[in-house]
Amino acid sequence: MQRIKLLVEYDGSNYHGFQWQKNAKSIQGEIETAIFKLIGLETRIISAGRTDTGVHALGQVVVFNTLSSIPPDRWSWALNSVLPEDIRILVSSLVEASFHPRFDAVSKLYNYRIYRPVIGQTMVRNYAWCLSEFLDIDLMNEAAAYIIGEHDFASFCASGSSVKDYVRRVSQCYLVEKDAYIDFFIEANGFLYNMIRIIMGLLVEVGRRNIPPARVKEIILAKDRRLASITAPPNGLYLLEVKY
Amino acid sequence: MQRIKLLVEYDGSNYHGFQWQKNAKSIQGEIETAIFKLIGLETRIISAGRTDTGVHALGQVVVFNTLSSIPPDRWSWALNSVLPEDIRILVSSLVEASFHPRFDAVSKLYNYRIYRPVIGQTMVRNYAWCLSEFLDIDLMNEAAAYIIGEHDFASFCASGSSVKDYVRRVSQCYLVEKDAYIDFFIEANGFLYNMIRIIMGLLVEVGRRNIPPARVKEIILAKDRRLASITAPPNGLYLLEVKY
Repeated sequence: MQRIKLLVEYDGSNYHGFQWQKNAKSIQGEIETAIFKLIGLETRIISAGRTDTGVHALGQVVVFNTLSSIPPDRWSWALNSVLPEDIRILVSSLVEASFHPRFDAVSKLYNYRIYRPVIGQTMVRNYAWCLSEFLDIDLMNEAAAYIIGEHDFASFCASGSSVKDYVRRVSQCYLVEKDAYIDFFIEANGFLYNMIRIIMGLLVEVGRRNIPPARVKEIILAKDRRLASITAPPNGLYLLEVKY
Repeated sequence: MQRIKLLVEYDGSNYHGFQWQKNAKSIQGEIETAIFKLIGLETRIISAGRTDTGVHALGQVVVFNTLSSIPPDRWSWALNSVLPEDIRILVSSLVEASFHPRFDAVSKLYNYRIYRPVIGQTMVRNYAWCLSEFLDIDLMNEAAAYIIGEHDFASFCASGSSVKDYVRRVSQCYLVEKDAYIDFFIEANGFLYNMIRIIMGLLVEVGRRNIPPARVKEIILAKDRRLASITAPPNGLYLLEVKY
């Protein structure tokens, strides 16, 4: 038995999220179907985390066990030959039987992209949040700094989540303006349901000067999800890297 | 009767080109349907030029005549409310009854994008030619310089074209490498069928050092379409601007 680790990139636009679903296309479903096409055996994969409908990944991590004789580093090539072109295996490798992509992860790094120009939106509409209005990026970065550190993020968790512990440690949280984009980067040891999109929505409200940066600190301390502002759309969000 | 000019942007990924087709989705079909939804009258539009399946536009120009009382500058807003989100009217305005978007055009400017990194291709696969291999951009620019000027471009016209006169005047032809992209720009008073994609294919062969730059001059002089090399895929091509 070999345990194979895959570094996976996908365009989430055409999928109902990572997780397998009975009547909808999912990234998990496509990868499991691809493995079945290669070896003729139903194989369950485990990922570092789910991504929602429309969310993308440049560095999702997936593992599965197999008795197949396909060499570990050739799985990427083999899977890419049968996967749809919006899912690519960047690297495949052998890992220890004890490796777990979610439990062993130390942190995850996400990127959220905001596209600024009025022109070109038809081309990026699935890959960024198109916001051409004025945004004060200095105020947004001032607000983002309050997110860094270990906090109870209950105010930033969408309803429908079953978690009991809302404490997470955010190690990076900042925005960079470059050419046509504002890129938001956030790294943490874990994220609550919709946490990044709720933070992004709040930061945009700060950028619009509708909310002062210091209000972010108050919202964290309130631990009240009703205070959360708009939720940013999923299409600007990218899972960049899972760190081990 | 008013003649309305539209500046149109579209993501061509989901369309079988600009021109109306009986059993396939086209940009023209979508815009004519949108006009019908607004005023209830079948209205024919005329464009500055057709774009092929998968080709995009940031500055297509379209006109139509109408008796509608919709103010000229409000047509963009009205059409965007009924058009699919991958087609946007950037500007609408009143033009003289004699204005013709194709015959009055002095030149057209196109951009062809090549995406270089191995990572991120799933996201740009419909918007650029993904080529991660070595490309010598200096050689490519040396070759591109031979394209500039008035030439008989018979060697760069795909079969199936009905034109008799292959002479076109190219005023700009160069490549720029920036971040993840090589951007090719070409401006001419007109283009033959697949001309830009054939030139792009040839320049990539030069970049691969399979063909010396001076060979481009020989191919122009030969006026033989069989000499044309690979044709670049449509998805990297953008109609940027029609100049009047």
